Amino acid sequence: MGSFSVKPVKVGICGLGTVGGGTFNVLKRNAEEIARRAGRGIVVAQIAARDTNPKCDTGATPITADVFELVNNPEIDIVIELIGGYTIAKELVLKAIENGKHVVTANKALIAVHGNEIFAKAREKGVIVAFEAAVAGGIPVIKAIREGLAANRINWLAGIINGTGNFILTEMREKGRAFADVLKEAQALGYAEADPTFDVEGIDAAHKLTILASIAFGIPLQFDKAYTEGITQLTSADVNYAEALGYRIKHLGVARRTEAGIELRVHPTLIPADRLIANVNGVMNAVMVNGDAVGSTLYYGAGAGMEPTASAVVADVIDVVRALTTDPQNRVPHLAFQADLLSDHPILPIAECQSAYYLRIQVQDRPGVLAKVATILSERGINIESIMQKEAEEQDGLVPLILLTHRVTEQSMNDAINALEALADVSGPVMRIRVEHLN
Amino acid sequence: MGSFSVKPVKVGICGLGTVGGGTFNVLKRNAEEIARRAGRGIVVAQIAARDTNPKCDTGATPITADVFELVNNPEIDIVIELIGGYTIAKELVLKAIENGKHVVTANKALIAVHGNEIFAKAREKGVIVAFEAAVAGGIPVIKAIREGLAANRINWLAGIINGTGNFILTEMREKGRAFADVLKEAQALGYAEADPTFDVEGIDAAHKLTILASIAFGIPLQFDKAYTEGITQLTSADVNYAEALGYRIKHLGVARRTEAGIELRVHPTLIPADRLIANVNGVMNAVMVNGDAVGSTLYYGAGAGMEPTASAVVADVIDVVRALTTDPQNRVPHLAFQADLLSDHPILPIAECQSAYYLRIQVQDRPGVLAKVATILSERGINIESIMQKEAEEQDGLVPLILLTHRVTEQSMNDAINALEALADVSGPVMRIRVEHLN
Repeated sequence: MGSFSVKPVKVGICGLGTVGGGTFNVLKRNAEEIARRAGRGIVVAQIAARDTNPKCDTGATPITADVFELVNNPEIDIVIELIGGYTIAKELVLKAIENGKHVVTANKALIAVHGNEIFAKAREKGVIVAFEAAVAGGIPVIKAIREGLAANRINWLAGIINGTGNFILTEMREKGRAFADVLKEAQALGYAEADPTFDVEGIDAAHKLTILASIAFGIPLQFDKAYTEGITQLTSADVNYAEALGYRIKHLGVARRTEAGIELRVHPTLIPADRLIANVNGVMNAVMVNGDAVGSTLYYGAGAGMEPTASAVVADVIDVVRALTTDPQNRVPHLAFQADLLSDHPILPIAECQSAYYLRIQVQDRPGVLAKVATILSERGINIESIMQKEAEEQDGLVPLILLTHRVTEQSMNDAINALEALADVSGPVMRIRVEHLN
Repeated sequence: MGSFSVKPVKVGICGLGTVGGGTFNVLKRNAEEIARRAGRGIVVAQIAARDTNPKCDTGATPITADVFELVNNPEIDIVIELIGGYTIAKELVLKAIENGKHVVTANKALIAVHGNEIFAKAREKGVIVAFEAAVAGGIPVIKAIREGLAANRINWLAGIINGTGNFILTEMREKGRAFADVLKEAQALGYAEADPTFDVEGIDAAHKLTILASIAFGIPLQFDKAYTEGITQLTSADVNYAEALGYRIKHLGVARRTEAGIELRVHPTLIPADRLIANVNGVMNAVMVNGDAVGSTLYYGAGAGMEPTASAVVADVIDVVRALTTDPQNRVPHLAFQADLLSDHPILPIAECQSAYYLRIQVQDRPGVLAKVATILSERGINIESIMQKEAEEQDGLVPLILLTHRVTEQSMNDAINALEALADVSGPVMRIRVEHLN
């Protein structure tokens, strides 16, 4: 790919824990792809961290133990705050703003509690403070509400926005386990903190809900007014009764606009089992947003973790870089990548595409047919995953033979189908439907 | 709300059909909310249409039958193309660009087939051509891929991006109906065109997939290389066999990056039934996007319709207005709305919030208890939706009584619970969990 005419943007990462390490890794691994999208290279000029991160090879990048050295580094354009908590994080973010630097943060507590003050200061100094990673990890739900649904008067939103809580509720439902038992496992797996209060008492979810409600309804951040109820009182009995009534229990953050005011509440909630959001399981997050024009929409993905959260942090960095372009009409390129940096990776003809397959073959109901079919597939390197022979309504002695195969090229499958259709035991065309597991 | 210091942006709407009428209505109804978000008012200065739309009261807005009069109108800043098709739409979009106007379009066919030419011309003239509404209606999936997931190397994406096809497949599965039969109903309901070729043969989905693949992988638009297979050959038998194997059949657009090249294909597909996307039913759309950092994400909502599509069109208009701001640091305000135009709509205390409720009451297993419980609820205006009395393991003659109520204020429910807990027939605290239907 071509070089970039403008000099790279320099970022500093404060905190090299899970999200900090992930952010460094993503910026490094996808540097070329990111530059093609952003229109400029993005370089980590400095890291502030007390410890190294074994999952992160920082190479020659300068590291300081003093975050304020980074925040005062005149070379740095964008400060990425990934320390968490209120005290130092707040101080360093305000100092970065004062120094005229843009800020990207994943700190939901900081934004929910001190956001009004931080944004006021940022406006005064003409800098951006971006916080997509603060809510629902890698899911770009802040962007969806703030930009994608900007035409709407938002009526309500409801989200599974704490992965730990959702993991616990999923295990309670699927395996009939007790709350305390699953919590212990979640702590062992690293899903829950040693002190799980923020997760299981709903405080973490209330931080996120406070942020979502502000951008949905255009109100100041008011964390202190959120009603917060945790999941510690839930019993397996209630989970089962809910199920029997056709519902699932999820720990939801709900914000709703009413004539009298705005409801802002986090609590366990029964949801009809056929709703998509009722089927969001394990540590995954999802947010439903209902607007007057669009109706209900849903955004789903990983709500936490090293690289999912880094995905949102780095997207915010790219957003800042794009906002700073001197070419506002090309802020976001039409096809997402700079027009002179598109890829010539070819589109494959269908014969070269790979897929698993479902085959329905009408065969004579007599011995040896299955062996012939299996041989034809095997000779072309096609592995059978499962077979179902239905004793359905026979017609002319024919029965349907249903096969699922492993992944193979379309060309191999075409050859196999031609051979199958040539068998005297096979009647009519073979029905072929592709199978995708999407995981 | 305060007035805006800068003069409003003037838009022209070409085409006053379903989407054009919806766009006019949303811009009018939400004018104040939109101005608070965009930082400027947005005014429809002219409409080009041959006919009026009974669902759209255009009032005093000037209407011309000649789209080129609108495109050449020097007052207009943004041209909204909602005519559809290739011929006139292409000509008017190119002319608008030549005249230095920004363009917003919902025209998937135009972008998929002529997008490369249109974008080249737009870059030359320094204008934006926005097309969020071209894919998946109101779901902001273009923005999600182009901006929200910009940190990722996208591995694959898969979408249910044709509502008509998904409606037909849902009916075939849920009601065991035949393809041709459901198609006729879809036509009667207005979900399918009189000539359903574009929908049921996958051409419409291939247009959309072509666009998604370009922005995901950074490749030029190459509609002619997409493999396209429709749903007309599917039988109820295959739908049922898939079900028996634990799968659902969906008409998917799939784009996948491989070492050899990019797979770009639209076809019926078996998906494991427990995947969220396998549970997207009726006319709804959903797109899964898998990135190397974020993993799998999903975006769900209405893929067509008057106001859902208008939601995306108007979001694009707001995006253009925001990109043109002279204050790039405030392109998108931190809390989505202009800081001096936030609302003081209050947050309600939980006692004033409304919800439906699940109640679990431990009661003595003797006559008359249910009547007492029902009376307490009824006296506080609480209607019971359903009751379940479990003959569960009795302890001390106690059985659980489970109730679902209609919506009521938390205050009324608190009063009722206090009264219930005071009954001699009730033992221990009443378990209360809120119920939300989210529809």
